[in-house]
Amino acid sequence: MIRIILSGCNGKMGKVVTNLAESYSSLAIVAGVDKNCVKSKFPVFSDITKCNIEGDVILDFSRPEALDSILKYAKEKNIGVILCTTGYSEEQLEKINEASKYIPMFRSANMSIGVNMVNKILKNMSAVLYKNFDIEIIEKHHNQKVDSPSGTALLLGNTIKDSIEEKLDFVNGREGIKKRTHNEIGIHAIRGGSIVGEHDVIFAGQGETIEIKHTAISREVFAVGALKACEFMFNREKGFYSMDDVIGGK
Amino acid sequence: MIRIILSGCNGKMGKVVTNLAESYSSLAIVAGVDKNCVKSKFPVFSDITKCNIEGDVILDFSRPEALDSILKYAKEKNIGVILCTTGYSEEQLEKINEASKYIPMFRSANMSIGVNMVNKILKNMSAVLYKNFDIEIIEKHHNQKVDSPSGTALLLGNTIKDSIEEKLDFVNGREGIKKRTHNEIGIHAIRGGSIVGEHDVIFAGQGETIEIKHTAISREVFAVGALKACEFMFNREKGFYSMDDVIGGK
Amino acid sequence: MIRIILSGCNGKMGKVVTNLAESYSSLAIVAGVDKNCVKSKFPVFSDITKCNIEGDVILDFSRPEALDSILKYAKEKNIGVILCTTGYSEEQLEKINEASKYIPMFRSANMSIGVNMVNKILKNMSAVLYKNFDIEIIEKHHNQKVDSPSGTALLLGNTIKDSIEEKLDFVNGREGIKKRTHNEIGIHAIRGGSIVGEHDVIFAGQGETIEIKHTAISREVFAVGALKACEFMFNREKGFYSMDDVIGGK
Amino acid sequence: MIRIILSGCNGKMGKVVTNLAESYSSLAIVAGVDKNCVKSKFPVFSDITKCNIEGDVILDFSRPEALDSILKYAKEKNIGVILCTTGYSEEQLEKINEASKYIPMFRSANMSIGVNMVNKILKNMSAVLYKNFDIEIIEKHHNQKVDSPSGTALLLGNTIKDSIEEKLDFVNGREGIKKRTHNEIGIHAIRGGSIVGEHDVIFAGQGETIEIKHTAISREVFAVGALKACEFMFNREKGFYSMDDVIGGK
Repeated sequence: MIRIILSGCNGKMGKVVTNLAESYSSLAIVAGVDKNCVKSKFPVFSDITKCNIEGDVILDFSRPEALDSILKYAKEKNIGVILCTTGYSEEQLEKINEASKYIPMFRSANMSIGVNMVNKILKNMSAVLYKNFDIEIIEKHHNQKVDSPSGTALLLGNTIKDSIEEKLDFVNGREGIKKRTHNEIGIHAIRGGSIVGEHDVIFAGQGETIEIKHTAISREVFAVGALKACEFMFNREKGFYSMDDVIGGK
Repeated sequence: MIRIILSGCNGKMGKVVTNLAESYSSLAIVAGVDKNCVKSKFPVFSDITKCNIEGDVILDFSRPEALDSILKYAKEKNIGVILCTTGYSEEQLEKINEASKYIPMFRSANMSIGVNMVNKILKNMSAVLYKNFDIEIIEKHHNQKVDSPSGTALLLGNTIKDSIEEKLDFVNGREGIKKRTHNEIGIHAIRGGSIVGEHDVIFAGQGETIEIKHTAISREVFAVGALKACEFMFNREKGFYSMDDVIGGK
Repeated sequence: MIRIILSGCNGKMGKVVTNLAESYSSLAIVAGVDKNCVKSKFPVFSDITKCNIEGDVILDFSRPEALDSILKYAKEKNIGVILCTTGYSEEQLEKINEASKYIPMFRSANMSIGVNMVNKILKNMSAVLYKNFDIEIIEKHHNQKVDSPSGTALLLGNTIKDSIEEKLDFVNGREGIKKRTHNEIGIHAIRGGSIVGEHDVIFAGQGETIEIKHTAISREVFAVGALKACEFMFNREKGFYSMDDVIGGK
Repeated sequence: MIRIILSGCNGKMGKVVTNLAESYSSLAIVAGVDKNCVKSKFPVFSDITKCNIEGDVILDFSRPEALDSILKYAKEKNIGVILCTTGYSEEQLEKINEASKYIPMFRSANMSIGVNMVNKILKNMSAVLYKNFDIEIIEKHHNQKVDSPSGTALLLGNTIKDSIEEKLDFVNGREGIKKRTHNEIGIHAIRGGSIVGEHDVIFAGQGETIEIKHTAISREVFAVGALKACEFMFNREKGFYSMDDVIGGK
């Protein structure tokens, strides 16, 4: 049984993880950490340094500011860290890398297993198909999202770019009289209602198309990925890991 | 049996119509007209004025220049005209209207039954749903298409606009940091490979979406619509008709 | 401001409605009724007969057993009833009809605005397109759903049947060597993961297809429809109403 | 420049290949073979043994009966063979294998690059995702297709089966009261209108789905794959090759 210390346990995602974890017999949340130190189904501490319960991994859904204390605690206890927080500075990313020389560290831009699987598939597909197929990305999100295109669309787009020798350019939407050139990747940001999140990568060739489409149904998907990462990181050696390793089947 | 005089019988669409008509028992092409006066399965005349075979309707897939002689011939013979040619000038459109006072005239921006059905549905849906749903249009075409968005996407978009009291604006693609406003219709032009033509209108609301999607599989779809229009126009009274009337079931 | 008495306020849907209602300025839940009589953001009564707070409509998400007391209370107070409970017996449905002679009564098989809009569209489309288009229905739901096809798929399928003069048959899946006949409607039940609910009606013709697709994103969609029904029923005359009236714009 | 001898040049696919080949500068059809020995843009022979024009590869879209003479001719001339004919007997498949010891032989169940790419992706995806995702296949074809499910759906389904340790079962459609089991693959055969061919493999997990979808737009797609195979086989060593090798980038 993997014992998880959940940092950020009273935030939105922390609560989703707490609920989901109950349905797993292979792991349990043994302690929580949250500034907003409300009691949960497990003891909650206002700061990780105060946590006196033994855990196997730290799962973090808090804020970038908590990084230093998490790394210090993890090194002292010699346990792994799964970082699901976003928005780290360059300096902080450097600290994370540095920490991976001493303890097992995990970080991914997107915690969904599906998005990471799509991203992995695209590497091989793009290299093989690019010469004969045009590539376009359609992403759909709710009407409250402020940035276009989505971070995940850019992640996928950059993966495609990096897989191809020729230099490709992103084109955000199209208007006017101009034929498509082969070395462009069209990116299209649809916004409306309460759509959770869809990403559709289209390879359009002569007489056929292939589509790779990911649909997020609920926020739970990130909790599923996080718990999967906890299982993967249990008893792992020091080093840097990401979702690519989890879905790589290593 | 409806006897059709096919104007423009040796063009691309003329040939598709010729092939398709053979599978109909309710109609037959009795004569063709084409500058490129090659013999077909029926007598072909270089100019409609030379056509000495009796027909019930004229089906035109030629060029705008042929309009005058077609109208003159139709009035003399007192038969209906189905115009599937595009690119008429304002002056020519006026002539078509004028002719409808004497003979049955048919013209539609898009000859596909499906696109016209979608267009009709959108009128009612948009009026009812607009207050609670965001509307977006995605259209996909092959990589040789030069104009974005497609004429059909604009047709559908304008139908939506006209159905709603509030003033809406088209937005072609999205990029940057800016939340969607409710009174915009996003239009997204995907280009790639040999995609024939897709139009997807999305109504995205709170907790649900509705999509109305049309897919053109081949150019044949316009021939099907044209022959359907011929059946509809057979023995029709003088007046102006369009696909709306055909699918209206009148 | 519409004052709602929410029957079944502590059930799953009752809670979703309670949360959603807070974002509306045009209405408010002034009292709740639930056997499980836990306090909420409003007073909660164990039985509607005990409710001493004045309301404009009763919104019911409880159980069929509560019907009699709800109808009795509504007649006494002369207020409308919106029934979102399912599973009524024939006898109960008769009582509901009878009550509509005295007070405004509302009931719909599916409370989603989108599904009802799709259902309405299908009536007209099916009648016009059937002769030239094959009709198929694909529905997708999570892997815990026990019945196939879904009730909504059957609702839509029956609407199509009723719109067409010729007698159509449902075909659930296909296997073996047998050509499709025109008078069948294929229904296909996809089951997997945590898919909330999708219904896709395909009209497949010569050279083109039209799809009408509804996607439920979350249970919230039924709460949205219920509150919309409350707004519609406010100050309505006695009679029987359904979602068809709400989306009919009457 | 690759010189192709096209066997079956006057059949449906032979003509599509003939037209497509004109747009390639890297290859040319130098001779044709067809029982129906009508002149084409190149000399046509009624039997390959009569062909006195030198070629680099034989591209075959004829019938299984032609196999023996093709293999004999290819061995004599020491050139490669690309077999796109289907319906070989077990004995013939054995002959093809045997021939690959002497000359370069190519054969694939489906000549589309896209379908083969999808098939390849599924191997890895299925193994990694199966534990946490339900797998379903939807295929759509025109209303004249007699067999359900399609051969390609079975090809993809069997690839998934072979990638997973646990034994899976195909389920063709669903009806009645019965929950899905994890070790079934639902296969759904949609039939209607003139749909060319779509195959959609759905991985449905907790909170997310991934779809891999292939759409055939026209018969041309098989000609594209065939010419790509010709390029791949040019100057290749003896041995047995398939589309997997072409898209493998070897």
